[in-house]
Amino acid sequence: MDRRDFILSGSLAYAGLIINANNIYSSTIKEFKTGNKMKLSFKPYELQLKHTFTLANSSRTTTPDVQVKIDYQGYTAYGEASLPPYLGETPDSVCKFLSKVDLGQFKDPFLLEDILDYVDKIEDGNKAAKASVDIALHDLIGKLVKKPLYKLWGLNPDHTPNTSFTIGIDTPEMIRQKVAEASQFKILKVKLGRDNDREIITAIRSVSNVPICVDVNQGWSDKQKALDMIFWLKEQGIVFVEQPLPKELIDDMAWLTEHSPLPTIADEAFQRLTDVIKFKDVYSGINIKLMKSTGLREAHKMINIARALDMKVMIGCMTETSCAVSAAAQLSPLVDWADLDGNLLISNDLYKGMQVIDGKVTLNNWDGIGVKLI
Amino acid sequence: MDRRDFILSGSLAYAGLIINANNIYSSTIKEFKTGNKMKLSFKPYELQLKHTFTLANSSRTTTPDVQVKIDYQGYTAYGEASLPPYLGETPDSVCKFLSKVDLGQFKDPFLLEDILDYVDKIEDGNKAAKASVDIALHDLIGKLVKKPLYKLWGLNPDHTPNTSFTIGIDTPEMIRQKVAEASQFKILKVKLGRDNDREIITAIRSVSNVPICVDVNQGWSDKQKALDMIFWLKEQGIVFVEQPLPKELIDDMAWLTEHSPLPTIADEAFQRLTDVIKFKDVYSGINIKLMKSTGLREAHKMINIARALDMKVMIGCMTETSCAVSAAAQLSPLVDWADLDGNLLISNDLYKGMQVIDGKVTLNNWDGIGVKLI
Repeated sequence: MDRRDFILSGSLAYAGLIINANNIYSSTIKEFKTGNKMKLSFKPYELQLKHTFTLANSSRTTTPDVQVKIDYQGYTAYGEASLPPYLGETPDSVCKFLSKVDLGQFKDPFLLEDILDYVDKIEDGNKAAKASVDIALHDLIGKLVKKPLYKLWGLNPDHTPNTSFTIGIDTPEMIRQKVAEASQFKILKVKLGRDNDREIITAIRSVSNVPICVDVNQGWSDKQKALDMIFWLKEQGIVFVEQPLPKELIDDMAWLTEHSPLPTIADEAFQRLTDVIKFKDVYSGINIKLMKSTGLREAHKMINIARALDMKVMIGCMTETSCAVSAAAQLSPLVDWADLDGNLLISNDLYKGMQVIDGKVTLNNWDGIGVKLI
Repeated sequence: MDRRDFILSGSLAYAGLIINANNIYSSTIKEFKTGNKMKLSFKPYELQLKHTFTLANSSRTTTPDVQVKIDYQGYTAYGEASLPPYLGETPDSVCKFLSKVDLGQFKDPFLLEDILDYVDKIEDGNKAAKASVDIALHDLIGKLVKKPLYKLWGLNPDHTPNTSFTIGIDTPEMIRQKVAEASQFKILKVKLGRDNDREIITAIRSVSNVPICVDVNQGWSDKQKALDMIFWLKEQGIVFVEQPLPKELIDDMAWLTEHSPLPTIADEAFQRLTDVIKFKDVYSGINIKLMKSTGLREAHKMINIARALDMKVMIGCMTETSCAVSAAAQLSPLVDWADLDGNLLISNDLYKGMQVIDGKVTLNNWDGIGVKLI
């Protein structure tokens, strides 16, 4: 069984995990004639959520996903595109995009700037698809030089933050149950933005005093009401408020940040590097996610730029396997807050990788992004 | 003869180069009990200039310098502090600073963020001293993973720019001679800012049509006269104008940049990362030098930030050996313009490293900063 068959069938089947029955994309997997060129392969994979995931405007029990690998000189490197439906990419769009990516034309995976520039220019958008290539290339480079990425970036793994754990919108009774299950976490994250915001916070506070981050997902519309709510939230021990207003309301958002007693964090309001520079005095900080930033390289630059603007930085994720979560965790010694619980929200992870120990993001010393197939 | 003796006497004497006679600092060289810790050593070294170097307000025939190395696990890594007198550091101040740097407390050279943060906080200022440690640490890391730094940063060595070659202020006759000697260069750099600016440019244009960068070193004081001169310079095929006005004249500089037909580049006006963000709409770009940025790590971040601000970037140097110049050259695939001729201006280089071939910065494939002792 060659490496290609391994990821296509062996490892996933071995792990006893659910695979999309209709493997419509296997025919698009690229083959190259020489063993000394990078080989990219990819496979849709449906993430099973432990709890129904409810945002302000939708709920779901699965997340579409594409698993990616690059084979090169005997090394296998992993990447992933997680595809929450509201972001617009699908397994179909990702696989179509990846089928256009010809890594074999590059003689050397260390030409990251060129390769990722080429990938970025293949087509607009496709940010998660691009991230999957970026993650696998970074994994490959770490494996080639036999170092975890955090070492190559000069970071101290002891400086990782605690990660928040997301408590989805639910009934007060279910929320209390979820909070009890999350007792190891030193910080919780709660989705607000519907008509029961105070009820949710009160339900959590009835069973826990841990700090809480609030993610409104653009769910509030009136800046004055938002400010009143933020003052109330501050009294409840909330740490920051993420994306309180619709992303288009720049002036309202600047007003809210100026008056807010809590830091405000941009999420849906930005995508790429060039957006960050506009946020000085609009938000207090940014939530960087690999599936939006097109991967680690641009995420790393975003952190540097946010710091130069005196902005707070958090690193977040989608529901993902430990692959993309562990990749993001490599950058976490640089951030103020982490929301890296995506792998903990699914029941069919494919990898061992970054762990949460006593609530803290805990990096291993494995090369690259720090994952191994289960 | 151990490695320490080698750099203290052997290699420099072997190279037949001039060494400061009074080695007053050898007693400050640090020794550590275990062979598994980083050992920092350093030595003043006087750079001999091929031509008397004339700026707007001074001239000299030597540049003070301190050579640095780090020994670790059988590897020797090199760094350098170049100390043009107008920047305020001296061999004495550098050696005193370096004698306080205890690298032995860090178990791992890959903890760059921690180590350089520690070094930065030992004392304010001392930017060239700090750069010498940063350069040697980067050299060490590249050697440990057996890669040139540009590879670790994902850069393509083919994308290096041409370097300019500096023609010092001199008589028209000497200028014509210097330009003739610089015939391999595709771009020249000229120091202006005295009363003979047009004469100098005219002298060069009488023998050469190559593009010219102009460095005024704050030598002009009136913004309207500066603008008139820049319009004239544009007609003469000048590429950009560096530090035309005194660094304090922020508003005048913003006006000049707005009206200038050529890009304006900040040099003396900034030092550290946090300064760059203030320059949007004040200058068109920045000239990054390792001896001001405290080394490669901050220089790399500066480039990212300047790019996010849509600013031009050049990378420059002092009169230096091939050590610091080759270190800066590792970043040069990311910049618009390079002014990396410092090693070519001295007669007593200590290293082989980056080369200028047909006017272009040409990187070798040696590990780390890419230098070997001559």
